Amino acid sequence: MQQLKKVVLAYSGGVDTSVCIPYLKNEYGISEVVTFVADLGQGEDLELVRQKALNSGASKSIVGNLVNSFVERYAFPAIRANALYLDKYPLSTALARPLIAENLVNIAREINADAVAHGCTGKGNDQVRFDLAINALGPDLKIITPAREWNMSREEAILYGEKFGIPAPVSKKSPYSIDVNLLGRSIEAGILEDPMQEAPEDIFSMTSSVNNSPDSHQDIEIVFKNGFPVGINDQFLTPVEIIQRANNLAGKHGFGRIDMIEDRVVGIKSREIYETPGLLLLIKAHKELESITLNPDVIDFKGMVEKKWGQLVYQGFWFGPLKESLDAFISSTQTSVNGRVKIRLYKGNAIVIGRMSENNSLYREDLATYSKDDVFNHSLAEGFIYMWGMSNKIWAELNSKTKD
Amino acid sequence: MQQLKKVVLAYSGGVDTSVCIPYLKNEYGISEVVTFVADLGQGEDLELVRQKALNSGASKSIVGNLVNSFVERYAFPAIRANALYLDKYPLSTALARPLIAENLVNIAREINADAVAHGCTGKGNDQVRFDLAINALGPDLKIITPAREWNMSREEAILYGEKFGIPAPVSKKSPYSIDVNLLGRSIEAGILEDPMQEAPEDIFSMTSSVNNSPDSHQDIEIVFKNGFPVGINDQFLTPVEIIQRANNLAGKHGFGRIDMIEDRVVGIKSREIYETPGLLLLIKAHKELESITLNPDVIDFKGMVEKKWGQLVYQGFWFGPLKESLDAFISSTQTSVNGRVKIRLYKGNAIVIGRMSENNSLYREDLATYSKDDVFNHSLAEGFIYMWGMSNKIWAELNSKTKD
Amino acid sequence: MQQLKKVVLAYSGGVDTSVCIPYLKNEYGISEVVTFVADLGQGEDLELVRQKALNSGASKSIVGNLVNSFVERYAFPAIRANALYLDKYPLSTALARPLIAENLVNIAREINADAVAHGCTGKGNDQVRFDLAINALGPDLKIITPAREWNMSREEAILYGEKFGIPAPVSKKSPYSIDVNLLGRSIEAGILEDPMQEAPEDIFSMTSSVNNSPDSHQDIEIVFKNGFPVGINDQFLTPVEIIQRANNLAGKHGFGRIDMIEDRVVGIKSREIYETPGLLLLIKAHKELESITLNPDVIDFKGMVEKKWGQLVYQGFWFGPLKESLDAFISSTQTSVNGRVKIRLYKGNAIVIGRMSENNSLYREDLATYSKDDVFNHSLAEGFIYMWGMSNKIWAELNSKTKD
Amino acid sequence: MQQLKKVVLAYSGGVDTSVCIPYLKNEYGISEVVTFVADLGQGEDLELVRQKALNSGASKSIVGNLVNSFVERYAFPAIRANALYLDKYPLSTALARPLIAENLVNIAREINADAVAHGCTGKGNDQVRFDLAINALGPDLKIITPAREWNMSREEAILYGEKFGIPAPVSKKSPYSIDVNLLGRSIEAGILEDPMQEAPEDIFSMTSSVNNSPDSHQDIEIVFKNGFPVGINDQFLTPVEIIQRANNLAGKHGFGRIDMIEDRVVGIKSREIYETPGLLLLIKAHKELESITLNPDVIDFKGMVEKKWGQLVYQGFWFGPLKESLDAFISSTQTSVNGRVKIRLYKGNAIVIGRMSENNSLYREDLATYSKDDVFNHSLAEGFIYMWGMSNKIWAELNSKTKD
Repeated sequence: MQQLKKVVLAYSGGVDTSVCIPYLKNEYGISEVVTFVADLGQGEDLELVRQKALNSGASKSIVGNLVNSFVERYAFPAIRANALYLDKYPLSTALARPLIAENLVNIAREINADAVAHGCTGKGNDQVRFDLAINALGPDLKIITPAREWNMSREEAILYGEKFGIPAPVSKKSPYSIDVNLLGRSIEAGILEDPMQEAPEDIFSMTSSVNNSPDSHQDIEIVFKNGFPVGINDQFLTPVEIIQRANNLAGKHGFGRIDMIEDRVVGIKSREIYETPGLLLLIKAHKELESITLNPDVIDFKGMVEKKWGQLVYQGFWFGPLKESLDAFISSTQTSVNGRVKIRLYKGNAIVIGRMSENNSLYREDLATYSKDDVFNHSLAEGFIYMWGMSNKIWAELNSKTKD
Repeated sequence: MQQLKKVVLAYSGGVDTSVCIPYLKNEYGISEVVTFVADLGQGEDLELVRQKALNSGASKSIVGNLVNSFVERYAFPAIRANALYLDKYPLSTALARPLIAENLVNIAREINADAVAHGCTGKGNDQVRFDLAINALGPDLKIITPAREWNMSREEAILYGEKFGIPAPVSKKSPYSIDVNLLGRSIEAGILEDPMQEAPEDIFSMTSSVNNSPDSHQDIEIVFKNGFPVGINDQFLTPVEIIQRANNLAGKHGFGRIDMIEDRVVGIKSREIYETPGLLLLIKAHKELESITLNPDVIDFKGMVEKKWGQLVYQGFWFGPLKESLDAFISSTQTSVNGRVKIRLYKGNAIVIGRMSENNSLYREDLATYSKDDVFNHSLAEGFIYMWGMSNKIWAELNSKTKD
Repeated sequence: MQQLKKVVLAYSGGVDTSVCIPYLKNEYGISEVVTFVADLGQGEDLELVRQKALNSGASKSIVGNLVNSFVERYAFPAIRANALYLDKYPLSTALARPLIAENLVNIAREINADAVAHGCTGKGNDQVRFDLAINALGPDLKIITPAREWNMSREEAILYGEKFGIPAPVSKKSPYSIDVNLLGRSIEAGILEDPMQEAPEDIFSMTSSVNNSPDSHQDIEIVFKNGFPVGINDQFLTPVEIIQRANNLAGKHGFGRIDMIEDRVVGIKSREIYETPGLLLLIKAHKELESITLNPDVIDFKGMVEKKWGQLVYQGFWFGPLKESLDAFISSTQTSVNGRVKIRLYKGNAIVIGRMSENNSLYREDLATYSKDDVFNHSLAEGFIYMWGMSNKIWAELNSKTKD
Repeated sequence: MQQLKKVVLAYSGGVDTSVCIPYLKNEYGISEVVTFVADLGQGEDLELVRQKALNSGASKSIVGNLVNSFVERYAFPAIRANALYLDKYPLSTALARPLIAENLVNIAREINADAVAHGCTGKGNDQVRFDLAINALGPDLKIITPAREWNMSREEAILYGEKFGIPAPVSKKSPYSIDVNLLGRSIEAGILEDPMQEAPEDIFSMTSSVNNSPDSHQDIEIVFKNGFPVGINDQFLTPVEIIQRANNLAGKHGFGRIDMIEDRVVGIKSREIYETPGLLLLIKAHKELESITLNPDVIDFKGMVEKKWGQLVYQGFWFGPLKESLDAFISSTQTSVNGRVKIRLYKGNAIVIGRMSENNSLYREDLATYSKDDVFNHSLAEGFIYMWGMSNKIWAELNSKTKD
């Protein structure tokens, strides 16, 4: 491999990515390490983080505000896709990775870097998502992953950092590994590694416990246009506001926690805790609205598309041709997903209590009703069942003959 | 069609099926109408119902206790299949139909009847389920469906019945159409026909409202063997007891209500309310246990099998060759589904807080852990990602060339 | 039903649709029957057919040349979809039905008709395709299907016709039921109803028998752009010319016959013979080109889309929302399907002997080669297999422990 | 890693696996290398191969006759599964790998070896199949893959071997890489690496060219019982005889060649040539028999199962839980696959000209016929279409309203 000169490092401000800076310079002989930290709505002081990178030896430290892109280009398509990996996880962390990777590649282009780097370990999903997205957007760029290659324990990494002026963390390390962005929080490790141990209350911060949630319910209406949420309670909101509002509402009422055994890309099962109140709420409402605005066969087939979409995003294929074509399918279904869904938030529940679509409802009361206004032609049922069950009856007749 | 002499009628005790008795005798010229009413745990006084049939002109009136069969042969396989039509409805009513049909056919054989009859209307799902199951088990038997063919309104039907000594119902008719069995209650019609109207509280009887549910939570453990629930809280129970216990526990805490827009077999959308507390609870626990005991690829493919299984049962194909083969697949996956799931029942929620399998857990803490005991080989990730992302990278390299 | 006044009848010139004309007038009391016959390249003298309708009592008789539409809007999308019902039948007849229906509806609008009619019987697929397409485009139009309702045998129908001046067919009726258009011929009935009887040679007219095909092979190249065939042997051709040319080439060499047991929409199995030389050849070439220009995951998922597409078209859902969304998926995959496929036509075979794409080939000789120029990094395989087989190994380790 | 003492090496007699013997002893310090060569019907003199291993330094050299197992436990299930990877390749080589692996593991157990070894390179599929099968059966066994790790060119490998008394190959190396067993031959490399180059005639040896095949056709009948082929032309044959006979018949008439672009497990596309005359013929006949003996919904769903089965086997998951469950599904469908298929072999074609099942045919002439014996109730079609097209019509009515 030729000597690398300039690298863009995905930076978080934590010990691991901080140590990566001197490590890249000293062990890889790279002269310039430019760090990039993404503002994804995680609510940290990113100017501090930026400084920290410089203090750790970065030649340049960049903060990028990606919140709008994150919601509009990542969260919103996920809502249209009703994306739930393993029927549970709405990909809050997974969605952020390709966006960060895209920015790493763009910066690398701008500053003429020959490589990008990240601090992911070798058994997580994020390394796969970063690497594949970087490959997709900058297939010529070299990817460096110090934490996957060094053989340092956390303690050794801290010692290594201290040699280069990176202060050891003052507070005791949290036993958990936590990732945060506007869409939610992912929590793993520590006591959670025993799948029979209850997740402790203190790991949550976006959602109330059922116990602490208000004693009275709150009914809201979520409005959709072309499959995108556009308002809550008749107030039109920007995409980012929608997510924030949904987070607050659902979180307050204790809705949006997930505790699951997850099948990672690398082949192992892990126990994961998520809280993604707004995203889960919006997906639930969206899917409900589809139940009244999409044809049965579309709902059925879209289910397969959604599952594959979620798997692709989870597994790192955001920038890929199949993802693109699934998006074309999904977009084509969403023009009729207009309407509103009434939801009761109460004690950990988000209960759909009503749904309607002024112009796109396929529900027909005149056909469904049991009242006198029924226009359904009952007498045609015999014909339907005759052919609907024909092949099964032929099979049964054959079987009964065989038994004789 | 040759003149029919003896018919077995699926009887419920309601006005409609009561009127069927004189109708079959007078309009179809059938001499003997034998009624059959199934005890599926619906909790009615079936001796009264039996008498009513005789009073309405039945030559014989039979009550069959099908509760054990219903749970063992229908509900339990549905739990193994995680069966949820449209991801929501656990088929509580749909599962009963083939069992009733089977009994109708058996009785027809015993008494040498030449036809079976039922009182379903022409736009519901149950007519399809009855007809297909009867065709499958007695393809030579004629099926008569008076309510699909007569053109009487409810009022006219009552008048017709009165002519033959069937008393008009004393109480005012409930605005709802309700079906009940041990697994749950299905409620439709009336105000529910407006999908934006909230379901009124008084239609529910197996589940508390969140509001009225206890203010303190209850943690339970559900134990599974070969994918079947066998105990709750270390108490081994019979299948029927399991369902009853699960109904009581979940119902008390307000878990198990469903409010949905459903795609019927006959092509229309209808709004359905269900309460199926026990079945939903057991399916949730079962699926959770599978997440730790089944391989990722099995979980993935079984998802498709489950969806098809649910559709087949919903659409009337219980007795059919595809259903049989799907069952073979499912059975083969369940030998390792052993273990227990800890669930918190609280204010409408059934929150999984832990899961374990002593002998069949595929979760490996030594591989998943972030602690020093990690045995996962991180350095191999590069190789994995190289080939995992190979085709995507080739595509990206081609694309970037094309753009040049 | 209110009295219908004007109807547009899909007309073929055969006895059955001719008899429909007086039947509609006399039995349904319809005053004006306007006939429509579609030119789909079937190679008949349609002016004669047009006259025949007038002679049979039609008030107006219209011939529409649909050949271009048929190829461009129906056959070409089917090629992109690699559409083969039951992996065999390229839908040559099925594709024509929605196009005819569209024209029936358009004419009905123009002449202010209140109904459309067709002569299909009650157990074929075409009735379903006509009715669904008419419903989709003119949901308010009444559909009349005399042949489904009358109870006349063929002989009775002829007699009925004679009463109204429709001459009995002079030549003895062919024992076969045959449908022809530019894309192919569908043949059924007669001796073919015994699935063990070989299809007689004289039913074929677009394809040579292997025996009679030339003794020397012919190599051709088919060129595609965006998934559409645009040329054969470096000669650019219009869509209609492509089909004609492909028909001639493949037909001459005996390629393109199908003999199959088909699952009809109405639930029965039927034995069908088709000859569709050009369409089959083009689908084969197209699929081959995709094998070198599409990503593995796209090929895999598109397989499911193709299967569903074929089923929808076979089953009558051409004009439907799912078909639309599948088309969006397919279109999105086809931008890279550019290149050429070399095929040897010889004695009933169409053997792919080469394929290439100048700008979109994902085949990479530098990665695939076994020569010294190999750039594939073999040493990374261990890492790939470690994670690729991880979950299977965990399962195996558990199993071997259990056995101990 | 602890020092390995005894290893079982999968041996082929070629230069590469021969060089592995001294390499394992010298570079890995292994004292005993026991070789295993599988007789899979490839038709070589395996006693010579056995000797060669001893001459190359093996401490023991074992030949195992696996032909019966190969056909009964591998080829026959593949026929039931209609297994065709990418709709083309019947897995002739892929099926052999898990069987060889199973024998390697068994021998390792018997002789108390601590590892198994094979000579696969790092970008083929076979390494994956070997490694995963060995992991599944002997998860504790170490796997050694010298050819994946050494960095020798072929020339260097030969030189290395000569140092240890392994003679350089006398004849010039074939430009092709070829794998042979009873089921077929796999050919790659050389000129074939250009996908636009025609495969030269001299690479084939089991199949005639169309040109050289007999000028008169041969009609045969293949008889199946429970989905397994049991006879050809009324002669009952053992499984191995069936394959041999089918190979001879199809091969003679030039049927059974495949030329394809294949998506390898490691993510690259490669161009592969196969000749698998018997296996392809039997799968074709089997699938045809299913078309008349299986229900439409079974055929449809089994298609997905077959695809997944083929992928699993191709990708190395023969011994895995999903494969087991798919087999359970498939087995359950095959009890009715009894009957015979008539096939015309002629000039590269295997044309199905008839199929029948005495006891399991779901084809019903009385329902399919266009003659007077038709028992199908045409008048019921209206009812069928009413509900079959209901949701599509509702959608259309809504759309037409929207347009107004």
